[in-house]
Amino acid sequence: MKYLIIGAVAGGASTAARLRRMDEQAEIILFEKGGYVSYANCGLPYYIGEVINDRDLLFVQTVASFNKRFNIEVRIYSEVKSIDTAQKLITVTDLKTGETYTESYDKLVLSPGAEPIRPPLPGIDLDGIFTLRSVPDMDRIKEFAKNRRLGHAVIIGGGFIGLEMAENLHHLGMKVTIIEMGNQVLAPLDFPLAAIVQQHIRSKGLDLRLSSAVTGFDKLKNGVRVMLKDAEPIDADVVILSIGVRPDTRLAQAAGLELGASKGIKVNEYLQTSDPDIYAVGDAIEFPNPLTGRSMSTYLAGPANKQGRICANNMVLGNVQKYPGSINTAIVKVFDMTVGTTGMASKHLQAAGIDHLVSTTHSGSHAGYYPGSKQMSIQLCFAPGTGQLLGAQVAGFKGVDKRLDLLASAIKRESTIHELTEFEHAYAPPFSSAKDPVNIAGFVAENILAGQLSLFYWDEVEAVKENEVLIDVRTREEYNKAHIPGALSFPVDELRNHLEELRTYAGINIYCQVGLRGYLAYRILKQSGFEKVNNLSGGFTTWQACHNEIMIGEKAKKADLAIA
Amino acid sequence: MKYLIIGAVAGGASTAARLRRMDEQAEIILFEKGGYVSYANCGLPYYIGEVINDRDLLFVQTVASFNKRFNIEVRIYSEVKSIDTAQKLITVTDLKTGETYTESYDKLVLSPGAEPIRPPLPGIDLDGIFTLRSVPDMDRIKEFAKNRRLGHAVIIGGGFIGLEMAENLHHLGMKVTIIEMGNQVLAPLDFPLAAIVQQHIRSKGLDLRLSSAVTGFDKLKNGVRVMLKDAEPIDADVVILSIGVRPDTRLAQAAGLELGASKGIKVNEYLQTSDPDIYAVGDAIEFPNPLTGRSMSTYLAGPANKQGRICANNMVLGNVQKYPGSINTAIVKVFDMTVGTTGMASKHLQAAGIDHLVSTTHSGSHAGYYPGSKQMSIQLCFAPGTGQLLGAQVAGFKGVDKRLDLLASAIKRESTIHELTEFEHAYAPPFSSAKDPVNIAGFVAENILAGQLSLFYWDEVEAVKENEVLIDVRTREEYNKAHIPGALSFPVDELRNHLEELRTYAGINIYCQVGLRGYLAYRILKQSGFEKVNNLSGGFTTWQACHNEIMIGEKAKKADLAIA
Repeated sequence: MKYLIIGAVAGGASTAARLRRMDEQAEIILFEKGGYVSYANCGLPYYIGEVINDRDLLFVQTVASFNKRFNIEVRIYSEVKSIDTAQKLITVTDLKTGETYTESYDKLVLSPGAEPIRPPLPGIDLDGIFTLRSVPDMDRIKEFAKNRRLGHAVIIGGGFIGLEMAENLHHLGMKVTIIEMGNQVLAPLDFPLAAIVQQHIRSKGLDLRLSSAVTGFDKLKNGVRVMLKDAEPIDADVVILSIGVRPDTRLAQAAGLELGASKGIKVNEYLQTSDPDIYAVGDAIEFPNPLTGRSMSTYLAGPANKQGRICANNMVLGNVQKYPGSINTAIVKVFDMTVGTTGMASKHLQAAGIDHLVSTTHSGSHAGYYPGSKQMSIQLCFAPGTGQLLGAQVAGFKGVDKRLDLLASAIKRESTIHELTEFEHAYAPPFSSAKDPVNIAGFVAENILAGQLSLFYWDEVEAVKENEVLIDVRTREEYNKAHIPGALSFPVDELRNHLEELRTYAGINIYCQVGLRGYLAYRILKQSGFEKVNNLSGGFTTWQACHNEIMIGEKAKKADLAIA
Repeated sequence: MKYLIIGAVAGGASTAARLRRMDEQAEIILFEKGGYVSYANCGLPYYIGEVINDRDLLFVQTVASFNKRFNIEVRIYSEVKSIDTAQKLITVTDLKTGETYTESYDKLVLSPGAEPIRPPLPGIDLDGIFTLRSVPDMDRIKEFAKNRRLGHAVIIGGGFIGLEMAENLHHLGMKVTIIEMGNQVLAPLDFPLAAIVQQHIRSKGLDLRLSSAVTGFDKLKNGVRVMLKDAEPIDADVVILSIGVRPDTRLAQAAGLELGASKGIKVNEYLQTSDPDIYAVGDAIEFPNPLTGRSMSTYLAGPANKQGRICANNMVLGNVQKYPGSINTAIVKVFDMTVGTTGMASKHLQAAGIDHLVSTTHSGSHAGYYPGSKQMSIQLCFAPGTGQLLGAQVAGFKGVDKRLDLLASAIKRESTIHELTEFEHAYAPPFSSAKDPVNIAGFVAENILAGQLSLFYWDEVEAVKENEVLIDVRTREEYNKAHIPGALSFPVDELRNHLEELRTYAGINIYCQVGLRGYLAYRILKQSGFEKVNNLSGGFTTWQACHNEIMIGEKAKKADLAIA
């Protein structure tokens, strides 16, 4: 058998290595138009930021090691120009010599990846404006930034790569401004979780601009002027464009392979394209989301690597293993914080017309009495009725990855929130509490599902009706420090003595710091005959983060309008 | 409704708090024979070791807060002497006044916990010999150790508490000796994982004695002499007895409640005892292990807390929620290491006659190119045929708790090892690799299950037959540094050039450092017509840890025999 693989990074390299383990006698050739194979994309920002200092560490395999260890031929600087599906031939140009030749295949694998989006703005091609996707991109940024360590970096796009670059350039000593067109960073997250991250970014001294659009770039003597809609321009030493990627499907399209609704290469559940002798993996493919059934692309290294293994198995053994699809589990370190998401966000469920309930809890990363515990926020989206877990987001300072992994595995196997309550975690004080944050999130979701708890949300606080009341059930000290405007103070420990004076209201809206004392207050009131009672989801903590971010946004808007 | 609860720590306190949230009008009284309620048992060793410095942090709730927040009456120093199940009355002695009285109940909850085992050895009651279970135990040890910070502590029993105490007393500055009767620490683990922990304990300068039995104690002027079978006695300033606990079932037994096979209080799936008005939770109950169906006791805080919630739901709503049982998920910090277990160990599966396969893998805690990655060892036990995951053990320095939690949740819902390969983890370089250690463990298990990989184990190395060969497929440099005696060096990258000279052997036994290169070598040989090929599970890493520990054990045995 002769296998050709186009693209030698995550998906392609994984496919090749597994192919060799499955078939010692096969001929396997990897084509890569760039000069690097099997490198660690996800490490690139950290090499720029000097967190990783040894560049060689970024290369998992080299051309030589692929050959020695796997008996696989790797042809770098070799661009595949076309595929002749009828003759089962590809045409390759050797970019070093300019020579063009053909190579035949029995099975062909496409792993072309995705390419960064460069919007057609005036000045987009000026020196000093970079995207980060490949090793040469990284080298260029590093070289350029070398003498501008005290300069000003403007990051356009507050997504995962944007925030990683912001942190790393800040780490180098640069002043960093992030310009994001949307009203929050990290678009896959819901606003309350993004708000927590935004507060943390601001606390590090970065200039974070939301709902802000770049209109173009002007050349400066020693940098780039970034022009903004409705705001003063910013003079930058370096500009990083990180507004997203799109699947590289040129070759597939030219070969007449079917594309999907989101313009990725369409594959079946065996990762086979519309041509049965051509398989495809990685960022360029699209595949149904297991939760919605809708086709989507996933730009993540984990799924690409796993697809490689499945693709190789299917080519060698004949479509034996189904790819289950990805639920878009993603995580990012943002300075001292970690934040991540898995499954669907509430806003995306809403947009897809999928009915769901939302619960937000805040718990310590481990037992509060053991040193170093930090607060962590968990948001769950789940189906009314069945309680199936549809999405989860976690933000905090410690143990975020652990809870996210667990929730991802629960979503992937279509578990309910009941399973979270039964989850038997490994408990000792340095690692968790007797009830893990995931258990707590499950308990609260279960209470909501069972009708033992009715919630209201941070953006409904202002809509509290006139004949209703908003009560703060924290201690008087907490209330005096800061509280939601208009709230009355009724500490939970005294609530039982004040039932009669509360009966004059048509509805009671409760909040505490995170939701736990509020829940107890809720139960006391409901079981004392109060009919309309609601507890604030995520408590004062969630409200405060969201409220502060909304206020900052409005202040910025006013300033911008003054300029315009 | 009037609920009485006997025992006010984990299970009892959880039951009480949930009861109140479920029923605001109920009368709830908690009885505790000691002076402390709802305290953090698991924190006790760390307060002794001065890792936790504020003693108040250990108290989750107090008598006063239970009353104020939950309207629950707590009677401390109140020992329940008997239960009259016919009259639904308990007899209580107030230990402060000596007064005895009765209290009636509608529903009664037993949460008496377990008590440390004190073997009837000569001198067991001498001053300076302690067990650690309660706050007064902790205070006594702390007071006693105060002026002996440079003294010698002898820990009897190398279980979870024993190792935590060893670490904490070492942290105080004491010389620490651990005496363990078995041939390994942490009995719930299999030997290869325990061996890694033992090596780490020895590396910290502790004196770890395995297969060593204490025969009694002698009084010294300023301490205790610990007498050993077959070895010189040890003079200690402090002795900690941590050889295990047994369920405290005296009250239940006297009341005629049914006990189970392992002498715990027998409960049904609703946590109801043989008397329908009496429920029981916590360390004192026994319940079928979900994997074996055999009755067992679980001495863990997590399950006790979760039982409390279920028990309260069932009492208030009438047996609505089943307790799913515990798979004994446990974890412990041992100096810089973390080690844990969930489900069944291989030795226990073997003892129970349950057929299973075992796989050991070693992977980095996160991407090797990002600073701080540490090696982690994962052992899986799974069913041949179905691939159902039956047990998992993890040891390492970082991210151990995360993988253990995930594996625990997989075991609990009866997942197969295939699910581990599909597990979509949250990946960014600080948190994992594109393939998580759990994915890798799953891949290897899947290869074993599919017959694509045949293994041999560390304790089978010496049994390699004369007409077979043991080959080291690591680099020549690695081989020269250390290798298994008798192994020949055939680096995997050169193996394809040496196939013919290997054909003279009737069988090829391969090893590399952790198993990965060995697997590739295995595939090369198998697909080149070699019939009998095996790869060493866990590679040189596992073999070396086990071998070193066996050697230390044999050396100690010789020394002991010389003494005897």
